[in-house]
Amino acid sequence: MSNIREIAERAGVSIATVSRYLNGTGYVSDEASAKIQKEIDAVGYTPNALARAIFTKNSKTIALMIPNITNPFFNQMATVIEECLNKRGYNLFLCNTEDNKEKEREYIEALKSYRVSGIIASRTKCKEGYLDIKIPVVSFENHIASSIITVSSDNYNGGKIAFNHLYDTGCRKILHIKGPKDFEATELRCKGFLDAAVEKDLEIDIVEFETDFKVKMLEDNLNNIKHIGDYDGIFVFNDIAAAVVMKYLKEKGIKIPSEVQIIGFDNSFIGELLHPSLTTIEQPIKELGALVVELLIRQIDGEEVPIKDHLIDTKLIQRETTLSEVVSHSV
Amino acid sequence: MSNIREIAERAGVSIATVSRYLNGTGYVSDEASAKIQKEIDAVGYTPNALARAIFTKNSKTIALMIPNITNPFFNQMATVIEECLNKRGYNLFLCNTEDNKEKEREYIEALKSYRVSGIIASRTKCKEGYLDIKIPVVSFENHIASSIITVSSDNYNGGKIAFNHLYDTGCRKILHIKGPKDFEATELRCKGFLDAAVEKDLEIDIVEFETDFKVKMLEDNLNNIKHIGDYDGIFVFNDIAAAVVMKYLKEKGIKIPSEVQIIGFDNSFIGELLHPSLTTIEQPIKELGALVVELLIRQIDGEEVPIKDHLIDTKLIQRETTLSEVVSHSV
Repeated sequence: MSNIREIAERAGVSIATVSRYLNGTGYVSDEASAKIQKEIDAVGYTPNALARAIFTKNSKTIALMIPNITNPFFNQMATVIEECLNKRGYNLFLCNTEDNKEKEREYIEALKSYRVSGIIASRTKCKEGYLDIKIPVVSFENHIASSIITVSSDNYNGGKIAFNHLYDTGCRKILHIKGPKDFEATELRCKGFLDAAVEKDLEIDIVEFETDFKVKMLEDNLNNIKHIGDYDGIFVFNDIAAAVVMKYLKEKGIKIPSEVQIIGFDNSFIGELLHPSLTTIEQPIKELGALVVELLIRQIDGEEVPIKDHLIDTKLIQRETTLSEVVSHSV
Repeated sequence: MSNIREIAERAGVSIATVSRYLNGTGYVSDEASAKIQKEIDAVGYTPNALARAIFTKNSKTIALMIPNITNPFFNQMATVIEECLNKRGYNLFLCNTEDNKEKEREYIEALKSYRVSGIIASRTKCKEGYLDIKIPVVSFENHIASSIITVSSDNYNGGKIAFNHLYDTGCRKILHIKGPKDFEATELRCKGFLDAAVEKDLEIDIVEFETDFKVKMLEDNLNNIKHIGDYDGIFVFNDIAAAVVMKYLKEKGIKIPSEVQIIGFDNSFIGELLHPSLTTIEQPIKELGALVVELLIRQIDGEEVPIKDHLIDTKLIQRETTLSEVVSHSV
């Protein structure tokens, strides 16, 4: 006789229902859930730490989905999130989804059976995967559903700041290299950049990269940009992609910033290591990471946390890839 | 009545023994293990995918310990390892140990209770944590014990190649910035570098960094190096640390490579993004990752895999931070 059958019999439900309840997969009515949990409590089966987690629903483990582990920004975010979690007694497992829907789905399935205490989604490609799970979730960057909290930096305004900075340093032939269409954050950066250009009545060119930075991959995207030497200002959707653009321009003998000015986005550590050092829009990583963790833990602790968007301010970090502003402005 | 008690009674052992067996913690005799497993098989308790993993001992999940998630080399290794594992139907969880013994120990404890199928240790600080676990382990870089396979690139010869390249490009006042004492790999790089210098009868200076790269951290180490401008060649223990050294030198107005030549180690993607691009010693990441995965899966599949060191060749990748060799040599 197995316990799952015993629990099903005592609770007066099918084995399949108990299985759905235990695995967090599929629909179980509140009434059935209550009966099953009551019997689980009565049986008190605790073979080990993991099984305890299964029954108490707090394994003290959080999973963080990382969309691109080779992007320094997400590494810094992971480091901050982990520090915050460790202080509160939680472990962090990292899941490298590589912006791949199938990979993300498989991770979600594994995490459900592992009964993690919470999941931090990040630039998700698999929104539906988070909908019917009974695990607290906070989403970074992409909106998932009206039932899930989203945290992001103010990408739209960041895009505006980026345009205004290039404009105020004298750029008039401007290119924006934008991220893939399904990255909500980089779409907003693009929209803010465009709206600010409209305000100044300036037309700008846009090209789209098909992926985030990958080792040996973006070069093809760059070769598709006609007349890159004709621009005097380029806004790239993130810092690591900006690093690749800078390398490409230098190989073509185009001088930064005297011939073309460059601005990135993120303020990840790569910007300071580049030469010239990269002007960028800061996402406040520490603040973002701390907020994500706080909102998740409060849910795990059973608090009713209001479901809303949390938007953190972005700001200009000027370094050597842009010139001094010749026109003052306010955003 | 709980199953663990039932199993203990049937097997004629204590509950504590069953617990040790299930959790993989502490000693359980072969005889007791056999009895317990027999009773577990008889009871056939399988509440969900996870519990199945507990009993069949193959959760199809591997954990990779990453000593430093902000070091591009380890990100590239993680990406390669994950690709290889995915092809074989395994998921990968990443554990960012940050070269911290306590963090690594906690991860090992969590992984034991999660019944992962295998663990890839990497630059471990917590050797004893891997000794009494019943989970297949392959170690990258640091040796753990005579019972555990180690995979690494030929760091010693890589150090020799680095010295000979600097020597052959004309450097005679040479500094080696070495990694922390407890990194086996960077100790070997240092030893090879020194031995090659002895062969050429040249004295070199050595300074030690206390940690691997951390955002906003290495600068203090650099400020402790007296007269850094006096050297004409510097070998840095890895690429990302070399990037920080390059930034520091440029801030001091020291020209690379005309005043000082720089060589790194790893051939991680950062080297190509730097300006000038970084000469380095390649660790063949794809080969290393594929070998680690193969050796681990063969153990998981029950094969008797010979316990030995696997050493992969390293080689020079010349870029712009060093000059052309003026003297030919063979290693």
